[in-house]
Amino acid sequence: MNLHPIALLIEKADKAINQEDFDTVVDLYAEDAVLVIKPGMTAKGKVQIRSAMEAIAAHFDRSLDVRQAGMVILETGDTALVLARTLVSAKNFPVIERKATYVFKKDTRNRWVCAIDNSYGHEVLDASI
Amino acid sequence: MNLHPIALLIEKADKAINQEDFDTVVDLYAEDAVLVIKPGMTAKGKVQIRSAMEAIAAHFDRSLDVRQAGMVILETGDTALVLARTLVSAKNFPVIERKATYVFKKDTRNRWVCAIDNSYGHEVLDASI
Repeated sequence: MNLHPIALLIEKADKAINQEDFDTVVDLYAEDAVLVIKPGMTAKGKVQIRSAMEAIAAHFDRSLDVRQAGMVILETGDTALVLARTLVSAKNFPVIERKATYVFKKDTRNRWVCAIDNSYGHEVLDASI
Repeated sequence: MNLHPIALLIEKADKAINQEDFDTVVDLYAEDAVLVIKPGMTAKGKVQIRSAMEAIAAHFDRSLDVRQAGMVILETGDTALVLARTLVSAKNFPVIERKATYVFKKDTRNRWVCAIDNSYGHEVLDASI
């Protein structure tokens, strides 16, 4: 089965996150991308996203393991929405399943990049009340 | 409290859907927008979306009532992701709460339009197994 190009990018991102290869990670984001660090807190742009990724890696004692357990990609033109089941685990942390939502768009080089990374899905509403 | 322009568009869409004013509804979508009719089934473009909306209205015996009960809008540049709690009800149908996901983008006139309308959220994964 041929994977969608975006599925391959997410696989690459997960691998890079787990290996703490943050150069590869930030390369997969748009210049002005938004990352939900936790509900109610976001990072914007590659510099902030890199800092957030480093902090998250440290928080999980450098043992973070992120993987996808199923996804649907809804695509039109230069925009795509990914609905994913994301499994997050780490040393001394139980596996958490998140209902992640990612928006990808094509950049000026016609390459898919992540514009909005919200691994918390609708949990973000709990912080907005 | 000033509502986000996209929140106002969604309010306008809900009102138009409930009044079966489909001219107004399709005007809020991008030319190549994707609508999830139900998990595993999509409509693409204004003509298909209009037909789907008419079929949905008929299915609910012209008594459909759609409203949002909270939303978070994650925005960057010309792209936005909406996470919403959407309440769907109709005559002889109990109220259903959906975890909806909408992607908006700015069109060539710098106007926000809906590019991807997935009111089923992660339920789409159940149809992809």
